[in-house]
Amino acid sequence: MSIEQEVNDTARRARAASHDLATATRAVKDTALLAMADALVARAQEIISANAEDIARAERNQTPPNIIDRLRLDEARIADMAAGLREVAGLADPVGEVVRGGNLANGLELRQVRVPFGVVGIIYEARPNVTADASGICLKSGNAALLKGSNSALSSNTAIVGVLRAAIESNGLPADAVQLVPGEGHDGAKVLMRARGLVDVLIPRGGAGLIRSVVEESTVPVIETGVGNCHVYVDAGADLDKAAAIVINSKTHRTSVCNSAESLLVHEDIADEFLPRIIEELHDKGVTIHGDARFCEYDHVLAATDEDWSQEFLSLDISAAVVSDIEAAIGHIREHSSQHTDAIVSEDQAAVRRFVAAVDSAAVMVNASTRFTDGGEFGFGAEIGISTQKLHARGPMGLVEMTSTKYVVTGDGHVR
Amino acid sequence: MSIEQEVNDTARRARAASHDLATATRAVKDTALLAMADALVARAQEIISANAEDIARAERNQTPPNIIDRLRLDEARIADMAAGLREVAGLADPVGEVVRGGNLANGLELRQVRVPFGVVGIIYEARPNVTADASGICLKSGNAALLKGSNSALSSNTAIVGVLRAAIESNGLPADAVQLVPGEGHDGAKVLMRARGLVDVLIPRGGAGLIRSVVEESTVPVIETGVGNCHVYVDAGADLDKAAAIVINSKTHRTSVCNSAESLLVHEDIADEFLPRIIEELHDKGVTIHGDARFCEYDHVLAATDEDWSQEFLSLDISAAVVSDIEAAIGHIREHSSQHTDAIVSEDQAAVRRFVAAVDSAAVMVNASTRFTDGGEFGFGAEIGISTQKLHARGPMGLVEMTSTKYVVTGDGHVR
Repeated sequence: MSIEQEVNDTARRARAASHDLATATRAVKDTALLAMADALVARAQEIISANAEDIARAERNQTPPNIIDRLRLDEARIADMAAGLREVAGLADPVGEVVRGGNLANGLELRQVRVPFGVVGIIYEARPNVTADASGICLKSGNAALLKGSNSALSSNTAIVGVLRAAIESNGLPADAVQLVPGEGHDGAKVLMRARGLVDVLIPRGGAGLIRSVVEESTVPVIETGVGNCHVYVDAGADLDKAAAIVINSKTHRTSVCNSAESLLVHEDIADEFLPRIIEELHDKGVTIHGDARFCEYDHVLAATDEDWSQEFLSLDISAAVVSDIEAAIGHIREHSSQHTDAIVSEDQAAVRRFVAAVDSAAVMVNASTRFTDGGEFGFGAEIGISTQKLHARGPMGLVEMTSTKYVVTGDGHVR
Repeated sequence: MSIEQEVNDTARRARAASHDLATATRAVKDTALLAMADALVARAQEIISANAEDIARAERNQTPPNIIDRLRLDEARIADMAAGLREVAGLADPVGEVVRGGNLANGLELRQVRVPFGVVGIIYEARPNVTADASGICLKSGNAALLKGSNSALSSNTAIVGVLRAAIESNGLPADAVQLVPGEGHDGAKVLMRARGLVDVLIPRGGAGLIRSVVEESTVPVIETGVGNCHVYVDAGADLDKAAAIVINSKTHRTSVCNSAESLLVHEDIADEFLPRIIEELHDKGVTIHGDARFCEYDHVLAATDEDWSQEFLSLDISAAVVSDIEAAIGHIREHSSQHTDAIVSEDQAAVRRFVAAVDSAAVMVNASTRFTDGGEFGFGAEIGISTQKLHARGPMGLVEMTSTKYVVTGDGHVR
């Protein structure tokens, strides 16, 4: 059988499973989720053994230690995966929620209700915990999951999916609710991207390269996630203590994530006071500042290149510029932001109102760290990713964002 | 300048205009919409003259009379376009609506608010009235419109857009809120489809071929519209008078539209009673029935081919089959429906509940004609199309569906 047939058959099994998932009650789904969590813990040694194969292969291939660390599973990490599934079980079921409804003039009853997408494909990189997280979110939202992880985690993912499928099936739901997509390397992913009609939505999770290739090659609708060139704008009306705390937290709290700040903009009216202070604080934290001419008047600042303004560093680096006013800050953000998260620090109501209206990003922060753009922080309880596109979902995506809707129109023999 | 540069420059001007549109008040937008309507009426003769060029060209090219009729503009049709714009002015502004909001445990205020997409591309076929309709819906929802009509309507579209732009500009909004996409034939459309980042959303409106090519070639997110292979299932528990009225209305009220019925399924328990009656009524209305073996036992029924079950006839044709039970009907619909609109006729509560839960279409009708799936009928007031995909919008798309959202998170120096 060709890889194309194999992947498409996998998708057809997912479709069949999705019919049962779509009409499963919350009680049935939650019971299955708790059983999946228990099974991960009970069969942790199997998963760790499989993971050891992946680790050994990665070491033979001289994979960098930080990547190997992301790949590694131990009892604590498996317990975390199980805790994540239990948390999802505790969340409200989005399926069946009436989004809007009412009676039309002619007596027809109109209701728009949440329904699962059906079949959701997730294409992701090394971390094997995504396998359990995505499976749980898909199952709770009534979607069949087609998982395409990286080759480097294949043994781990195969073991995890085997454990999850057994738990799902022994709790009255179809095992095909969760499947790995067959195919070595990118072959399987490529077929998945062209399986329009068989797959309803694709969600890539990983680096910018992965996401770009899925967006460009896929005919299946894609939800783009993740790239964050986030800005902090310190306005003339800022409380500079708050501003410094927010800049430091946004940049240094965790550097490898999409909601960390990559660029600092400072209103020129406060530059003389704020620049020496923030440069010193950033330098003390080990941050390399890539500054404009104004920043370069100070020590510890490198001259920024043109590319630096659009750079998602994901490291202890930040680009930094002085702007003449708030409109210049908005213009800079419009030109360079990836429209993930941009923040203003200001006590000036007019400035805040203007920034919030004019900056079109998935999240606009007012006097708060960019690091708050997160499904957990927002209270969604579980997150499949952070959408940076405008279609369907924007910002952190929880269970609700994993659904579509349908209209149910009820009459009594109504005709036009 | 290459066509690629030209189209991309047009998109950049749309982006610049979108910044003003996004923050325009409802009052400003409504004033512009009313001025656009007045200008169409006042300058109707210019538009009709331009349209005459398109008609003459179409006649020289021996275009079929029904296509020429769709292309033709007269004072009455221009008055309809103006009335459409006035209706949009009367609708609520979706921009700024708070979709959800509340305070997080740490005191952060979280609000999810509706915002325009930004730049919306519409690719459509002959009818020039779409030019005014789409412009009005985009402007009211705060989006800049990039319009790519067919070459056959180029003179008409150019005239209409000229009139609209003048009215927009003289009312304080940027003329580039509405632009035609340059480029002969499909060249301009092809560039538009690859303008990811410059264009936020593409909406194709037209036949199945147009929609498929946009979906397959576009890297810009697409909302798929329109194809409807709609079913009416007459259950064992149906009131047969209602069933006959709904079948006839769904099939014959207007045949060329996506929400007309293309397939009839009848439960076998009522087949002996219902088939002779519905076959005669359909035959009297001039409908050709493409039936299964059971239907073919009667006069006036042609044997259905395998293709007929998935056919969107858009004509006085209907495929028809007897099914053994409701599960067989659901299975048939899952296999053949385009998931636009599917209807059940039944007085049996359990059957209705099962059908509504199991049939995953944009609209599920209960004891009502499939013809009700329509933005106007649903009370949306204006419709840009009917989405048959699951991402973002599903079913009739009004002003609300022409928006995205952003999160506004307000703190007081909050850090993690």
